[in-house]
Amino acid sequence: MQLLKERILKDGIVRDGNILSVDSFLNHQIDINLYNEIGKEFKSLFKDNKINKILTIEASGIGLACIIAQYFDVPVVFAKKSKSLNVSGDVYTADVHSYTSNKDYKVTVSKKYINENDNILIIDDFLATGTALFGLMSILEQSNAKLEGIGIIIEKGFQGGGDKIREMGINLKSLAIIDSMENNNIVFR
Amino acid sequence: MQLLKERILKDGIVRDGNILSVDSFLNHQIDINLYNEIGKEFKSLFKDNKINKILTIEASGIGLACIIAQYFDVPVVFAKKSKSLNVSGDVYTADVHSYTSNKDYKVTVSKKYINENDNILIIDDFLATGTALFGLMSILEQSNAKLEGIGIIIEKGFQGGGDKIREMGINLKSLAIIDSMENNNIVFR
Repeated sequence: MQLLKERILKDGIVRDGNILSVDSFLNHQIDINLYNEIGKEFKSLFKDNKINKILTIEASGIGLACIIAQYFDVPVVFAKKSKSLNVSGDVYTADVHSYTSNKDYKVTVSKKYINENDNILIIDDFLATGTALFGLMSILEQSNAKLEGIGIIIEKGFQGGGDKIREMGINLKSLAIIDSMENNNIVFR
Repeated sequence: MQLLKERILKDGIVRDGNILSVDSFLNHQIDINLYNEIGKEFKSLFKDNKINKILTIEASGIGLACIIAQYFDVPVVFAKKSKSLNVSGDVYTADVHSYTSNKDYKVTVSKKYINENDNILIIDDFLATGTALFGLMSILEQSNAKLEGIGIIIEKGFQGGGDKIREMGINLKSLAIIDSMENNNIVFR
């Protein structure tokens, strides 16, 4: 997606440890117009898929999923990272390791909101090694829902998670794939 | 907001400890059409305010803020609950106690995204004792931004936070105020 790549080059900041900071427009301050363009792009990329629900993970995925869901006219379910008193009853859980916060955590989705009749599009902002996605995919397996596809805004191609998921035959679309960020020089695939 | 109140009565579940679970449509599974109706309602309620940015707090606030922001044509900034490697540099911080997760945590906003030129609408899903809001208000004070108003989806009136904020002269609008939930009987103000 050309508009996104230009924005990453203009406003993205490469930090030590292969961190790409896009917090001026994507995941701290949010450019809602860009989110809407992203929504249109995913609708176009997944136009042949019968999707009835979008699944994402808190926190940065939620805003994206909500804006994107408008183009599919479907509800959103977001996986929770901590046990909340607001979610009760039977849940699916999966273990995830976050590299950006360097923590292990559990993700949780109530069994009430995903089941074998669902055709799911997973949305997330970043894909690096893929641990968050593997957690969400594990939840879909537990629920017997069908994974129709995965939509990612920025894939760090050099961290391998995306290629691993494509090799599994999953319909993964990343709007920008970064193959290298060495010396602050962002190279797209 | 009549549509919201009807939905709370239909799908809300009262749990022990004054917990109202609305996770089927508001903060786990999300009804995007309802979010859009909420966005229109807030635009109408704050139509005379010059708002250039919406501030919210992760996680449940983010989706709401993004959908609502479309009606104001402004960006969103969401306060982070944990220190992330993705946010660097100078930050505003405030301490918050969450009753639903029974934890103390810090909220953080980068100084890059809120400053004295901003006219802010704060959005959040729930208001009970108001600790999260007081944290966000502390961040606005630190930044010298102007607080134009606060928009809340569900206020638990019997927990007092809303009345305290109104007494401060702040323009707080809650779309549904619950004065009592005793014996599973939800009574709106």
